[in-house]
Amino acid sequence: MATRLPDGEFEARLERVRDRIAETDADAGVWFGATSIEYLTGFDHIRTERPVALAVTDERVELTVPRLEVERASEIPRIDAFHHYADYPGGDPMATVAEMLDGLGADAVAADAESAPGTMGYQGPPLSVFVDVETQAWVRRMRWEKSDAEVDLIRESARWANLGHRYLADYTAVGAHPATASQRASTDASRAMLDALGDRYATRTRGTGPVTAGYITGEQTRLPHGHTANRRLEAGDVLITGATANVDGYHSELERTMFLGEPTDEQVHYFELVLEAQTIAIDALGPGVPIAAVDEAVWSYFEEQGVTDLAQHHVGHNIGMEGHEPPYIDRGWGDHCESDHTNYDADDAAMRPGHVYTIEPGIYTDAYGYRHSDTVAITEDGTERLTYFPRDLDGNVIPVE
Amino acid sequence: MATRLPDGEFEARLERVRDRIAETDADAGVWFGATSIEYLTGFDHIRTERPVALAVTDERVELTVPRLEVERASEIPRIDAFHHYADYPGGDPMATVAEMLDGLGADAVAADAESAPGTMGYQGPPLSVFVDVETQAWVRRMRWEKSDAEVDLIRESARWANLGHRYLADYTAVGAHPATASQRASTDASRAMLDALGDRYATRTRGTGPVTAGYITGEQTRLPHGHTANRRLEAGDVLITGATANVDGYHSELERTMFLGEPTDEQVHYFELVLEAQTIAIDALGPGVPIAAVDEAVWSYFEEQGVTDLAQHHVGHNIGMEGHEPPYIDRGWGDHCESDHTNYDADDAAMRPGHVYTIEPGIYTDAYGYRHSDTVAITEDGTERLTYFPRDLDGNVIPVE
Repeated sequence: MATRLPDGEFEARLERVRDRIAETDADAGVWFGATSIEYLTGFDHIRTERPVALAVTDERVELTVPRLEVERASEIPRIDAFHHYADYPGGDPMATVAEMLDGLGADAVAADAESAPGTMGYQGPPLSVFVDVETQAWVRRMRWEKSDAEVDLIRESARWANLGHRYLADYTAVGAHPATASQRASTDASRAMLDALGDRYATRTRGTGPVTAGYITGEQTRLPHGHTANRRLEAGDVLITGATANVDGYHSELERTMFLGEPTDEQVHYFELVLEAQTIAIDALGPGVPIAAVDEAVWSYFEEQGVTDLAQHHVGHNIGMEGHEPPYIDRGWGDHCESDHTNYDADDAAMRPGHVYTIEPGIYTDAYGYRHSDTVAITEDGTERLTYFPRDLDGNVIPVE
Repeated sequence: MATRLPDGEFEARLERVRDRIAETDADAGVWFGATSIEYLTGFDHIRTERPVALAVTDERVELTVPRLEVERASEIPRIDAFHHYADYPGGDPMATVAEMLDGLGADAVAADAESAPGTMGYQGPPLSVFVDVETQAWVRRMRWEKSDAEVDLIRESARWANLGHRYLADYTAVGAHPATASQRASTDASRAMLDALGDRYATRTRGTGPVTAGYITGEQTRLPHGHTANRRLEAGDVLITGATANVDGYHSELERTMFLGEPTDEQVHYFELVLEAQTIAIDALGPGVPIAAVDEAVWSYFEEQGVTDLAQHHVGHNIGMEGHEPPYIDRGWGDHCESDHTNYDADDAAMRPGHVYTIEPGIYTDAYGYRHSDTVAITEDGTERLTYFPRDLDGNVIPVE
């Protein structure tokens, strides 16, 4: 049972970025991205307009935070020094980052961005006002190939997602409100996870959970990103479920097309068609396989079946610290790797051990949608399906009394 | 009771950006930001690596979406035409945006960014490969002054947040798990809101809710951004609560420092001190008041009381479509407005009717934290406190039997 990332993971990650820094003229690597900072140090924080910046040199790991994060950051053992500003905008965050870099003797840095992210409202000077900045995306690329320890956490996530999904199916009944069934399943599975893991449960400020389970119901299922309608469940409803659990910041994805009561012949037809498409995709996965080829295999099957008009998206994406991560299983992935707009190359067009994919081809008719999603890891010599709720029709019909 | 933004709001917003376009050499305004697109059109979407782009000209409103958003987008009446690409990266999203602009005769545009946001993984060509791009932040600035209709939604949010908060207090007891009390309060208040509003409830894919209520407990309260620990509540616990509700995409913020059982003399001391700081801030608010002055008033009080070492953040921020929005009640706000890094000016340094502030000064000792947060609107001639859960000590002590 793996519920926390071992400390050695962070040491290895820092070592790898130090190797990258050595290949450049930069004196330090700098990161403003919250996920990258968490990946390298284990420090997670709630993202606001207040910049947080990590600096790594051969010898040192230092962090600049707003005053309100000082105590939380100080609990992280592998950070050698902390710098802080009062608040934003008055506390002059980027000047604090510049002072940190000055203390490290870093006049030129390789940073993940020219400045702190503006999405939350930061509008101060960019880092390039203070030091020479070249940009890099090292951590984003490193995250593609997960270590065994990372895959262990996703495997553990799948276990608790399965419990949430089981409860969701159990609480689904004619007349129940989707909001109640979802929140009750989430609450009960979360409590089971918290009570089962006790001290081994890693509390995090980032993400939802511990377990979340819910669904899109009825005619909203025809929209891949539909909403939970304010209506009660009826016999004959199609459901597209979703469940995940947050295990030390890592996630799996489990989705099922379910029926409340016996499905119609048309519903069975599309269910079986999408199940076959998912099987084709799962069977196509493996180390060395061109990523685009998996999307192409499903598309060929959809062509054969005459349903390409009903397909609305590619087969899947990677998952881990974030819900959507590259590489994407998309017919255009190979060209994307070789385009001018990415730093990828032909080698990046193939699946590698440690990639963790969601496999979720879908079909959307005028009436309903049909989609399962499973989480599958690429191994040295094959694949491992991490989510395991039944995929077949029998396992996904909820009887109506 | 206001639960949906009236259509006229969108017409007025589009009119205002058309006025801004007329002041530039641009043929169209373009937005990639999801919140800005929702603000101008009412179209909300789940943000992924797939770009969405809105174009507005004198005559037309057009939208580019991935295939999977076509049906949802098509339900929005004020969008004149839709363009779509298959998926990312293979579907060539930015080329689709360029075709849309070509059809609109737009060779030069004023856009909210040079490209789609990279945070979710987009790494294609920027828009500037296809057309001349100047950047603008019109919508972000327009959102500061909320209309009466927007304030109505935040007032409605405060009502349901209050219910969630009431349930949270009711479900709080020695031995209860914070996760259970939070999720039960959220579920019950959400269900009350859904059942009370029925068809008037606006379902959205963006944001959480309908109602969420929860807390940080015990020693985690000394961290402004602490986590929900995996422990049961004990007599003597300090709680810092939080509750909000999503009303057609708008939010309020309600937070209270509460005690499980009778507080100690030291706890009462800090509670009353922070309550007074909040009162000072609320009394200082009003149209024309320099925003920085409110933070300064609280700081002066903290100086008087000798507790500046225990303060970790400024007094508050704006709230509405997002949880944190500018302007921020920060001592540096005036200088920020006049700095080179913002497009603001001296006029932007003062409070205006329609600003909606969270007022949340806090004090953090080695043992516990103390902070209330209320949501207050600036009106033509004063203020209106929108959240109304009791602020005094008696209203925030939960008896232990």
